[in-house]
Amino acid sequence: MSDKVKEIEHGPITTFIENKQFSEAAELLKEYHNVDIAHTIDRYEAEDIFQLLNEFPIDDQAEIFSYLPHNMQMDLADELSTKTLTAVLKNMSPDDRADFFNQLPEGRQESLLPILAKAERDDIRRLTSYEEGSTGAVMTSDYVTLSPAFTCREALAKLREQAEDKETIYNSYVVDENRRVLGVISLHEIILAPPYAKIEDLMGTNVISAYASDSKEETVRKIAKYDFLAIPVLDTENRLVGIVTYDDAMDVAEEAATEDFHKGATIGKMVGRVRDASLFHLYKNRIVWLVLLVFGNIFSGAGIAFFEDVISEHIALVFFLPLLIDSGGNAGSQSATLMVRALATGDVVMRDWARLIGREVIIAFGLGLTMAIAVYGIGVYRGGFDVAMVISLTMVVIVMVGSLIGMSLPFILSRLNLDPAAASAPLVTSMADISGVLIYFSLANFLLNIA
Amino acid sequence: MSDKVKEIEHGPITTFIENKQFSEAAELLKEYHNVDIAHTIDRYEAEDIFQLLNEFPIDDQAEIFSYLPHNMQMDLADELSTKTLTAVLKNMSPDDRADFFNQLPEGRQESLLPILAKAERDDIRRLTSYEEGSTGAVMTSDYVTLSPAFTCREALAKLREQAEDKETIYNSYVVDENRRVLGVISLHEIILAPPYAKIEDLMGTNVISAYASDSKEETVRKIAKYDFLAIPVLDTENRLVGIVTYDDAMDVAEEAATEDFHKGATIGKMVGRVRDASLFHLYKNRIVWLVLLVFGNIFSGAGIAFFEDVISEHIALVFFLPLLIDSGGNAGSQSATLMVRALATGDVVMRDWARLIGREVIIAFGLGLTMAIAVYGIGVYRGGFDVAMVISLTMVVIVMVGSLIGMSLPFILSRLNLDPAAASAPLVTSMADISGVLIYFSLANFLLNIA
Repeated sequence: MSDKVKEIEHGPITTFIENKQFSEAAELLKEYHNVDIAHTIDRYEAEDIFQLLNEFPIDDQAEIFSYLPHNMQMDLADELSTKTLTAVLKNMSPDDRADFFNQLPEGRQESLLPILAKAERDDIRRLTSYEEGSTGAVMTSDYVTLSPAFTCREALAKLREQAEDKETIYNSYVVDENRRVLGVISLHEIILAPPYAKIEDLMGTNVISAYASDSKEETVRKIAKYDFLAIPVLDTENRLVGIVTYDDAMDVAEEAATEDFHKGATIGKMVGRVRDASLFHLYKNRIVWLVLLVFGNIFSGAGIAFFEDVISEHIALVFFLPLLIDSGGNAGSQSATLMVRALATGDVVMRDWARLIGREVIIAFGLGLTMAIAVYGIGVYRGGFDVAMVISLTMVVIVMVGSLIGMSLPFILSRLNLDPAAASAPLVTSMADISGVLIYFSLANFLLNIA
Repeated sequence: MSDKVKEIEHGPITTFIENKQFSEAAELLKEYHNVDIAHTIDRYEAEDIFQLLNEFPIDDQAEIFSYLPHNMQMDLADELSTKTLTAVLKNMSPDDRADFFNQLPEGRQESLLPILAKAERDDIRRLTSYEEGSTGAVMTSDYVTLSPAFTCREALAKLREQAEDKETIYNSYVVDENRRVLGVISLHEIILAPPYAKIEDLMGTNVISAYASDSKEETVRKIAKYDFLAIPVLDTENRLVGIVTYDDAMDVAEEAATEDFHKGATIGKMVGRVRDASLFHLYKNRIVWLVLLVFGNIFSGAGIAFFEDVISEHIALVFFLPLLIDSGGNAGSQSATLMVRALATGDVVMRDWARLIGREVIIAFGLGLTMAIAVYGIGVYRGGFDVAMVISLTMVVIVMVGSLIGMSLPFILSRLNLDPAAASAPLVTSMADISGVLIYFSLANFLLNIA
């Protein structure tokens, strides 16, 4: 009853699987939730998993299968006969099925389609036809529709009849003959109402919906905002074509947060888990930006070369170079991070820009001043009063410039319809660095040469 | 029916409110969802909101109230008479009520408690007694319990009777006389079963639960993993004390992602929206780390001072300083970001450490080599063959050291029971910078002085 029951003991299961005693292993596994079973068996060979799955009822096979990592699903698809694969496919939920189908090699797709029932075939065709990242690509067709003329008793009978096959029966959509949504009604409301009350008198008519072409993140934000169990999805002609459920919404939200998080360090889009990612995939996802940033940094090198004279004369200036450029970069990446996340969660919108810039100038001035005071003493100790003055002044300017770059970049990217999350810490840092080098040595050149 | 209906037209509403025509404004607002009403009216003065709310039925008042920002709730609490406040409190869901109550000044809390019914009073006392951040602090007491001896017909009758007051009736918990959970049953299952079937024969007995003392993030991860609508929460004696529902889980997950995201740029915990945060709050959240990083950077300054001789002799070395230390920092913050997120989502656990370190060494070597090749040519152009060799060699070493710092720090923090997200980009960058300066000039000193 408590969690402890859920900690799977791997020892005996591994022993059974190594000895090819699959029915014994399955017996032990059957106590657990299908998610946990999938996470336990995904470490074995495809052939062993195939044998293990055979020990489960077909609907559990389908569910465990849908929780396996995508690459493992593909390996298993090679093992499974077309007949078994069809059976598993039939028992998967429409959205998982369409996802899986999409990834199969074309030849395999074509050999499978004729065997599936027409309804499933049409369903796959429809669900796989939406662009990746759109609401259509994550929706499911597993929902119940009701007629407005139904009584609650009739509605309940229809729900009972369809409950087995549907992902959710807790919200039903009331549609007209053209599948246009007239209203929504929850099972909660149907249960509470008198049996002969009409659905059209009970249903909520102010239905909040999404379009299949909307981005999936936008739809997920709507589900979270209104605390929906599911949201109806419409095509361009306002006809109901699917729903997105809260559980898929949670997966999408986590994926989106991870993606933004990775972009924050200029890491390309990661598919699947870091643990399982191939070395080359990780290398590829990181190298492009690193090399681009190297070339970006050539400007700071050129900037320094330009000021070679003042540097040779005051070598102490070099001591403070990492400190100053880091401070600008750090302040800038703080601003960028605040803005990227606020834009992603919808806390801040484009029209807030002017007001926020004004606030940022004040905050950055405060930050820069505090840091200038912090470094003044060190400046005097290492380079004398002149150098200390240059360093303190540079600090204020650098922190302000860095913060403004960090704050503006996400807005500018958003304005250009690019992803604000591309305003990552390393990008902002590099931009702040280049500005920092130029500001530092220009100020030094001016102040120390006239001094 | 489509979204367009939902775009609130602020113009006429503002006009009505400015003219103190509250019932007219409320008439316009009533078409919208309570979330949207709250987000629309939160821009007005507390006094106006108070007048507006009075135009709504008491349960809508309570719901709109619970969607208002916390500071606005506090302002309103001053406006509302104790009687009205009590009415609103009674109609709020137990978790929102406890949250709100917790924030009231103590005097106000004490004046309210006697007026509330004993059940609500006990409920508030219990829900506010859990530590912030724990599962107990986000759970609600709005759930239905059933006896195992009930028939489905009896269970349905009880659900009908309690449906009005409960946040969810879609999952019911079957408990014994000591409130120990025997099983869980969904409304779905009750509806499908014959009316005289016994609950104990239908319920799932393998109940996955959380403890009130578990961290809320852990419980949310469980809800997301198993696609639950709600998870039962137990006290230390395994008695049922509450549930956490999927919608609260979505809020917690978003909050946690935002927090980790901000930590990635060393921004302290932000309460509420960036748009509304005070200047001082933003300053305070950013300055501490910035100043700490300034002092961290003094080490790199000292390192450079130590190598003053080799620098004065080869001033070209300075040109490459920002480039090299940035590269180490960037590679390190990439690794740290990957690890922090993977630890937060549970993709990676402590025992993966050794294997992942091995992989990271290989990846970092590849990254470093590619970048070394990229800078070799520039090195030759600006500083000759000797300097180019130093730079290329330094690049490989710096990228590897930076990556290893970035990868290990989250694990070490996690091992010490600290939050891995504290291994933020600026912290890793600063650590990589200090190492970078030392590596760079040591290598230069060694290679150029013996050359």
